[in-house]
Formats: sequence, structure tokens, C-alpha cells
Amino acid sequence: MSGTPIVLASNSPRRREILTQGGYEFTVDAADVDENLGIIDPAKLVEALSLKKAMAVADKYPDKTVIGADTVVAIDGDILGKPIDESDAQNMLRELSGRTHQVVTGVTVVLPTVDGGRGHETFHEITDVTFYELSDEEIDTYVSTGEPLDKAGAYGIQGRGALLVERISGDYLNVVGLPLARLSRILKK
Amino acid sequence: MSGTPIVLASNSPRRREILTQGGYEFTVDAADVDENLGIIDPAKLVEALSLKKAMAVADKYPDKTVIGADTVVAIDGDILGKPIDESDAQNMLRELSGRTHQVVTGVTVVLPTVDGGRGHETFHEITDVTFYELSDEEIDTYVSTGEPLDKAGAYGIQGRGALLVERISGDYLNVVGLPLARLSRILKK
Repeated sequence: MSGTPIVLASNSPRRREILTQGGYEFTVDAADVDENLGIIDPAKLVEALSLKKAMAVADKYPDKTVIGADTVVAIDGDILGKPIDESDAQNMLRELSGRTHQVVTGVTVVLPTVDGGRGHETFHEITDVTFYELSDEEIDTYVSTGEPLDKAGAYGIQGRGALLVERISGDYLNVVGLPLARLSRILKK
Repeated sequence: MSGTPIVLASNSPRRREILTQGGYEFTVDAADVDENLGIIDPAKLVEALSLKKAMAVADKYPDKTVIGADTVVAIDGDILGKPIDESDAQNMLRELSGRTHQVVTGVTVVLPTVDGGRGHETFHEITDVTFYELSDEEIDTYVSTGEPLDKAGAYGIQGRGALLVERISGDYLNVVGLPLARLSRILKK
């Protein structure tokens, strides 16, 4: 793909795979940022975090496009991050069982502008995910794979977690961690 | 995973990847079958083809579980198979542009029964897929990647084709070629 070189401000291997799937070449440079912003609205939270992540490295790359992103799982007004241990993962999966939750990803794209300055665009994308009713045995089996432990909401739809999902409504890659199709439409500008 | 050994009666690399994602071990043995059944209803067609594919190899594996599958794209009562050339692929993508179509996968599972005989279960799964409005340039760029040529409906959602898709409603892996979550519920019995 042509255009300005891209820097992905995220260490997530899943986001790297998604950008690669889209045919993009890019480098990775992610700064640690404090994720406790005290924002309780999921969409506002992930937008603010994506902006913070992008801005944390943007100054180092004045001529490049920088992409920041953050993903959370939301249900009943609660935000589920990554579980702290297996018992926490089991509790999250019990909460998601048999119901529909939202996966919300915020994305910020920092772009050089035609006048030599910089602009940025921030958006969020929401996908509804409906889980099958899960038995305790299914939850235990899944948690024992270790897959849930580093994932928001304690599941990975691109892995064994696909077995838990009855249907989604929205963008699939948004659930994995980056809404590629919508992002590509911004990068094209 | 425990249970009867599994034979996948399909040469599709994507179906192999999906079964592997689900944690299944299996072997592959696919027979060529005549796919011209004269059935115009998409759901009936893919169910019949999945049964035909499974039965074509089932006799060779009396003690195993055999899985057959077939996927088509349906829009306006038309069934889109694999494009015959680049121009056919462009026409299919123009037909899908800006609209919602259905991806229909039929699956047959042939299982040994408790009385030493064999039974089978056949089902189909439908996922709605909505495309962005595509410019001729986007279509040409995508077709030039070569990805559309071996895919029903001329796109692969698991590849660069994800850039064309605004949203889906239903099972994602069903669009790739095998509704893993529902299949796993049958294999568990």
C-alpha cells in the first residue's frame, strides 16, 4: 500500500496481524500509558485511551501516520478488562454466558496534514457479541487453555473462544481488536 | 479433544484452519463430487452437497466421525459460486457492493451410533454480510491481489476482503466456511 509510513502504537500481536491482513506495512512503537482515566463510559474511555496511546509516541514520528487503539468489553454498564486470575476469568465468562455484550474499540489516527502540521481523527466502533449458554464445565475447560488470561472480557474470538460465540452483529475484526475496514477508509484519505 | 476420531471431507485449507482453531485433531479425505445437483434453494443446495461430500468417504471410515461442508453466497435469489475469471470476479463484487447478502454453509456430520450403526445430522447456517459501497478502483485493486479467484462470491473475509465488509450478522466462521461453534455442539453429543 502507498501513502505515509505507518507506526502502530500498540504491542498487541492481534492488532499487528489485523494490519498485516489489510496489506499494510508498518512499524511498532508503543509507550506504556496509565490506563486509569476515571472514565466510566466505554466509548469515551477507549477513544481517550487510543488518543493517549497515539500521542505518547506521535512526536517521535512527525512525518508518519500513527495509530493508537484500545478495546474493552461492556455489559450492563460494567467494563470488563483483562482478568487478574483464573477465578476472575471464570466470573467474567459466567457473566457473559447466554447474553449479548458489546465490544468497543477506540481508534486514533494521527496524520501529517497538507500544510505540514498534524491532525488526528478519533472514532469508536461497537460490535454486539452473543454468547451461548455456557456450562461450568465448558467455562473450566476454556479457562484451563490459558487463552482468557490476557484478553479483555476473558475470551479471544480469534481462538478457542469462537466456540462460545453464537453470533455477532457488526465488525468482526473490531472484536479481535481493530476495526480494519473503517480504519482503512480513514487511511485512504 | 476426546471422542471419536474425525475425518474432514473437504480440501479447503480454510476449513482445516477453523477445525484446528477449535482444538480438534483430524485427518482429511475429500472425494470429488458432482456439484451440479439442480437445486436452486441455497440452504437445500449446501445441505445436499455437504451430505454428498460426507457420504462419498464415510464408508471408508466406519468407526470415525466424518464432516462434510459446502458454502455459497446468495443474493436476490442468485447463487454465486467461485468466479471463472477476473472479469467474472469484478461483476460479482459489483453486485455485492453497498448491499447485504447471505453466506450459507451446509454441514453434515456422520457419526457412529451406540448400537454400532451410523447416523448423520445435517444443518445449515446463514450469516448476513453487508458490503461497503465499492468504487471500481477498489474492486480492481482487490481483484488484482488474486484473492477472489478461488472463493465463492469472489471475496475472502479472512483476507484482504475484510476491507470490503462493513458488518456481519451471525456466525463469522460460517462466512469463512465452517460454523465451528454450532458444529462443536453436535460433536460434543
